[in-house]
Order: sequence, then structure tokens, then C-alpha cells
Amino acid sequence: MESSLFAAEAALQIQIPESALPRIVVVGAGFAGLELTKRLSKGPFQVVLIDKNNYHQFQPLFYQVAMSGLEPSSIVFPLRKMFQKKKNVHFRMTTVEAVDTATRQVHTPIGSIQYDFLVIAVGAETNFFGNEHIAQKAIPMKSISEALYLRNSVLNDFEKALSAKTTEDRQSLIDIVVVGGGPTGVEISGALAEMRKFILPKDYPELDAGKMQILLAEGSPRLLNGMSEESSQAALEFLRKMDVQVKLDAMVTDYDGEWVELNDGTRIRSKKVIWAAGIIGNKVPGLPEAAILRGNRIRVDRYSRVQGLDNVFAIGDIAYMEDEAYPKGHPQVAQPAIQQGRNLAANMLRSLSVSGWKPFQYKDLGSMATIGRNRAVVDLPHYKTQGFFAWLIWLLVHLFQLIGFKNRVFVFINWVWNYMTYDQSLRLIIRPRSPRHNPIHQG
Amino acid sequence: MESSLFAAEAALQIQIPESALPRIVVVGAGFAGLELTKRLSKGPFQVVLIDKNNYHQFQPLFYQVAMSGLEPSSIVFPLRKMFQKKKNVHFRMTTVEAVDTATRQVHTPIGSIQYDFLVIAVGAETNFFGNEHIAQKAIPMKSISEALYLRNSVLNDFEKALSAKTTEDRQSLIDIVVVGGGPTGVEISGALAEMRKFILPKDYPELDAGKMQILLAEGSPRLLNGMSEESSQAALEFLRKMDVQVKLDAMVTDYDGEWVELNDGTRIRSKKVIWAAGIIGNKVPGLPEAAILRGNRIRVDRYSRVQGLDNVFAIGDIAYMEDEAYPKGHPQVAQPAIQQGRNLAANMLRSLSVSGWKPFQYKDLGSMATIGRNRAVVDLPHYKTQGFFAWLIWLLVHLFQLIGFKNRVFVFINWVWNYMTYDQSLRLIIRPRSPRHNPIHQG
Repeated sequence: MESSLFAAEAALQIQIPESALPRIVVVGAGFAGLELTKRLSKGPFQVVLIDKNNYHQFQPLFYQVAMSGLEPSSIVFPLRKMFQKKKNVHFRMTTVEAVDTATRQVHTPIGSIQYDFLVIAVGAETNFFGNEHIAQKAIPMKSISEALYLRNSVLNDFEKALSAKTTEDRQSLIDIVVVGGGPTGVEISGALAEMRKFILPKDYPELDAGKMQILLAEGSPRLLNGMSEESSQAALEFLRKMDVQVKLDAMVTDYDGEWVELNDGTRIRSKKVIWAAGIIGNKVPGLPEAAILRGNRIRVDRYSRVQGLDNVFAIGDIAYMEDEAYPKGHPQVAQPAIQQGRNLAANMLRSLSVSGWKPFQYKDLGSMATIGRNRAVVDLPHYKTQGFFAWLIWLLVHLFQLIGFKNRVFVFINWVWNYMTYDQSLRLIIRPRSPRHNPIHQG
Repeated sequence: MESSLFAAEAALQIQIPESALPRIVVVGAGFAGLELTKRLSKGPFQVVLIDKNNYHQFQPLFYQVAMSGLEPSSIVFPLRKMFQKKKNVHFRMTTVEAVDTATRQVHTPIGSIQYDFLVIAVGAETNFFGNEHIAQKAIPMKSISEALYLRNSVLNDFEKALSAKTTEDRQSLIDIVVVGGGPTGVEISGALAEMRKFILPKDYPELDAGKMQILLAEGSPRLLNGMSEESSQAALEFLRKMDVQVKLDAMVTDYDGEWVELNDGTRIRSKKVIWAAGIIGNKVPGLPEAAILRGNRIRVDRYSRVQGLDNVFAIGDIAYMEDEAYPKGHPQVAQPAIQQGRNLAANMLRSLSVSGWKPFQYKDLGSMATIGRNRAVVDLPHYKTQGFFAWLIWLLVHLFQLIGFKNRVFVFINWVWNYMTYDQSLRLIIRPRSPRHNPIHQG
């Protein structure tokens, strides 16, 4: 019985056109997987790209989607469109259930697929540090869908606040707690402060905008831990000037949907907790256990090879690669991911055996974060700046990193528009509605 | 006990700032309710506008959202933004549960509200003619949320078709049945044919686009019943040239999510049935029964007063007003709705008693429908045209009817873009995702 079941399962294969070329399966179309696939598409390979979404998402601007400043469609790009003219690239929208390194197969809900080379670029997701309450009630910001959910929640709660029965109820609907003082937490706190200043008084004159409280809780002694001391300090000052309550050395220990608990015993009532406190690698069952490290990162050598395997690679947030300058691995941000994708593609295009490959060398291009209108902090390798000029740099860099000419045009128009009018015009609560909600009427 | 319960309920009032002005409650922010509210906002009234969404939606372009040509945000407009500067207009996002004409109150889930004058502009929704199967399985097109759901369904099914186990399964995933040969059905059929011709071969080269079948079923002997014979005939020819199978005199009698049944006994297998076969008024409990007619329409006099009531009005799709030229009531489309809103506002601005009011006089401005790229049918009062020039008229009229300068700019750019590139670029399956789906990982 068991063998026949197995045979039936084995029969369900993802159908990909026959090809004599070696097949590279790439799992994940984030910064790393996408950079790799684009470059490999020019080489003598059959590339199968797998992602759970049919689009690539530009994470650095999620917070603007959440704050009604940009449409989701402006910062994502359809994968099929990207590879329309690449005959050797095949996209499949699905998830990976497991990898079988012995038979060289990837198992997914829509069938299995054989690989000659496998590249794992599944990235990371929100880390709730094992707290189930928080996972169920706090709002994460690691996908465009979550950003959209946050937008809907903020707007819905403003509407609800108008008919709250008590002052306390109303307050809990408009107050917001942001957890995590990295770029996401800092940027969303700044954007919330702008919304309170420019949008709330116009859209909700019946609510007292001045009463809305924005609390940013960071577990360490400073904001933007990955950046310079000057930038951390400037970000803190900018936020405090905008009347964001920043609590350093403050850990959120629990949240039941109503009350937030901090490690110093403080309890804050709020209907919305935005969780940007940490990330954890997406799991890929079937890899050698010895290669899986803390935070689900996968240990790779300088050629991005997964420890113990010859033909399986990992790049991006999920990969853990040590070198002289980064003895604890590279930061889990866009640049190392893109550069690893680029390096692996170049190596694979050189030859399919590692002899002659170049080891990965990370080049730090700097980092930046924006805080509301007109202000940002920028750390470049040989130059640091904070304030208005930093903000212009931030704008340009993000505009040009976007994929798609049309996306750039739309984001640019939106930015100019929002900047001139002090008015994000996308304050819409829209959800796709399935037919099973349709009521029946007899006419 | 009962009286105290009643007192508690009565205590839950929608909070609106005190005002000495007469209060007009407008239910529904469609074409009729919005036109009325905009005009009343200049007068000596306190206007309370109620809608289940926080935006006005431009229904004539829903089909383009469904076909990935436009973003929802480009054809909807936030209500709060519209009335930001109107101190006497108060918006509440909620639904109406019942009207109490004796105590002059509207009851909603967020509390009750007293009115001096009540205007019902709740519009109509999809009519499934009492068939529960169809209501549960077919996809309607009467809201932007439903249009977005249709987009996601079409794209999802194309993805699924790639891993279908049998040819029949694959076929049922890509074939589409459209029910109803009015403007919505005709326009979506044309857009689907364009998608089959220009998008499918590029995005899904592994599916044979030529095999995708589009069937349009209309219950009467001709398409576009509300338009001229020439336009009906031209629409039929345009669609057939685009290889849409048009079945006239064909009623869909059942659909179980897999098989569509027609009244002639034909059975067609399709995972998607788009239902645009008819509309029925949204119910408003509490109105005099004698005023409620077939299709839930509310009988009003030439001043839009609900039969039997002095201070309750109905305008738009929900209203049924007979006059010499329209002995069976006006067509349930945008123009009568807008004109009724305008007339009622003008009358109310004149005086609060009906003496001196002007009876409503419908002025038919014509009607039009577009069929794919480059072709439309246009019936103006003294001029009819079909083809390319009609399509230009259609474009201009719809562009200028949109609310909001930014919406016009974005729709215009999208149209030019799509027209030049033969490529709707919004083929994205995006759904807001709530935190309760978050998985827990131990790092």
C-alpha cells in the first residue's frame, strides 16, 4: 500500500517543458532570488522560479502603503511580466513543503520538481519570539498584504473611534504602539506622526488629533542599531520633535489585543500594535540539520553553498555566511541579498563546478532611513548626513531601486502630489470580496 | 425590564455635533447620494452622510479593475476627503438596519440617529433571482471589492491551470462564462477577449491561449437592451469578431461552481461565472409596505418623496418614479441618479416645504458601451455612432466623469500605457492579510 501511495505522489510532477539544459530551481523572488534569476536567464540554464506570490515586492516602501501614501501595485512587479521574453525561465506560484537532497527534488502543494541545482532564497518573516498572543494580535509588516491590512486597520479604527462609547475606548482606537526601532519601526512612527499632524485634523475634525499617542518601543539602548551613532541620535531627535514617544531599553512582553505589557511593568491600552521587532528565516524542511543555525539561517560557504551539499545554495536573508569583515554574518537587508544573487549568478555563468568561482565579497553601500517629511538619516561609506539633504538622497535612491518604469512614474507622481498637498489620497478601505458573502433577495 | 433595555438602546446615539440647522440624513454615497450631498453642503443644513464604504466608487470602470487595467484607488474617491472643508457635512461609515418613520430615526449598528429629512439613496445590488447556488458560486460585479475578487480569481486560475491534472480540468480553469448582455457583460467579455489575445500568450506561453473560451449568455433576443438596435447589432458583431461566443435567448438556470446549466439543457464546465444578469434594490426595513415595488424599488412622486411620507425621499436606482415619458420608471443607471440628486438638492435649497418645488424631469443624455480596444457603441439623443470614434467619445466622457484630478491623471496614464504596450501591468494577486494567520517559529 505504501509504495503505491508513494508512486501516486511521485507521479504528480510540476510540468515544465523538456529541456537538455541543466535545471536550476530558485525558491523565492525577493531581492536575492530575483537578481539571480534575471542574470541566469541569459545563460545556458533552464531556470524554474518559485514564489508564493505572483509578484516581487519592494519592502523598503511597505510603510508608505500602510500609511495610504502609495498603492501596493506601485511597489510590486508581476514576475511573469518580468520574464515574458525569457524562454528558459519558468515561474510557478506555489510554496515549498520540503527539499529532498537525496533524490534532488523540491516538493510543493502543486507537485514535485527535479533540480540539478537548487537555490534557496526564501528570505525571512516576522519574529514573534515564540509569543503566540503577540503573533495573533500584533500587526507585522513583512509583506504588502500585511501593509494593506495595517492601512485598513488604522482607517477602520478612526471610523470606529467616532462612535466609541467612552473616552478610554476612543483613545485605545486612535493610539498606536510600534515595536522595534529599526528602519521599519522608525519610518512608520514618523509617517504616523505626519498623519496625525496633517490628515487627522482634516478628515476627522471631530476627533482631537492632538490626543493621538504614538509610542515607539525599542529593546536596545538606541534606535537604528545597524547605523552610525550620529544617525541613531538624529533619528531619536527627529521623532521626539514630532511628538513620538520613544522608549529605549523597552521590551514588549505581551499583548492581548487590548493591553500592551512592557518589561518594566507598564501597561498601555491600544487596539493596534505594529510589530517590527525582528525577523526569523522561513523554514525549508529537508536540509541537513547541521546547516540550520539560530534564527533559521542556513550556513553557507563563501560560494553560497549550503554546508554539506554540493548543488544546493542559499542567498539573501536566509543565508549565513561568515567572512573576515563580518564574523557574525552579513546584515539581513537588501544589499547583501542583491550582491549574493549577483555573485552566484556570475559564478554559475562561469562554470558549473566551483573551481574558478569567485568567493563572495560584500561591499557595504551604506544605509538610510527616513523620518517623516523632509528628514532622513544617511550613512554612506565615507559620508554621513542627516536632515533635508539626506531625505533627498533617500528619495532618489528608492525611486531608482524600484523595478519598472511605470512604477517609478507612479511613485514619483504620488510623492510630488502628497508633498504638495500634505494629503495622502489613498485612504480607502478596500478588500476583495468573495461571492460566498452574497445575500439572496427575492425580488 | 423591557423599558430599561429600550432606554439603553436609545442611549446609543451616533454622535454628531449639536446644530440648530435642520438635519438631513443621506443614506448611500453612490451617484445620487453624492450629487445631493455635494449640493446640499452649500445650504443651511446639517447633512449626515452614511455609507458602508469610506469611498465613492465609479461603477462604469469596475470591469477595467477586474481585468487588471486600473487600480481600485484610481476609480474610487475617499468621502472624507471630499467633504473636508464642508463643516456641516458629517460622514459615518456604517449600514442602515431600519428606519423608524414615526420617531424619525435611522438605526445602524453603531447607534441611532434622528433626522428631520431622510434621503434614501442605497442603490441596487446583484440580483441572483433567488438562486442560492448561483449567489454562492458566481462572481458579481457591483462593487470594487467584487471586481478585485474577480481579478484575483482569473489570475489564480491561470496559475492553477499550469498544474492541472487533466485537459478538462485545465479547460475549466481558463474558460469563462459571462451572464448578462448589458453594458457590464458586454464590456467584460470584450476585455476578456483582449486579455486572451494580448496577455495570455506572453504571460502563459505554456497554456494555449487559443483554447480559452469566452461565452456571453443573454436572456433576451439582443445585447444592450437599453440601447438602439444599431448599437446592439454592432456590439454583437464586434464581440463575434473577437471570438466571443454570444448566446442570445439563453438563461443560466444553475451553477454549482463547476457546471453551468442553461435553459436549453446545455451544460458548460467553468470555474468562473461572472454574473451581471440583473439588479435588485437594497432593502431598507421600516418604510411603508405600500411603497415597496417589484425589485425592491421605492415608489416616489415627482419630487422624489416616498409614497405616504412627507420628509422621506428616495433617489437613484432604488427610486421608482413614473412620468409621461417613462411610465415604467427611469432606467437604473448613473444619469437619472445624478439628475435626481441634483433636482432634490435644488428643491431643498429653495424651501423646506414642497410648495414651489420643481417636479423632476429626466433628460436623457444618451448611453454607451465599449467593446475591447478601439471599439464602442454610442447612442446620443440625436446621434448614433459605432466603432473607433465612438470609442474616443467613450474614453473622454468616462475620464471627465471621474471624481478627483489625481484619479483622472492616473487613469489617463494607465490608459495610454496599456494602449501603447498592449499590456495591463496590474496582474497582481494581492489580498490584505490579517495577523491571525501568522505562524509561530521558535528561533
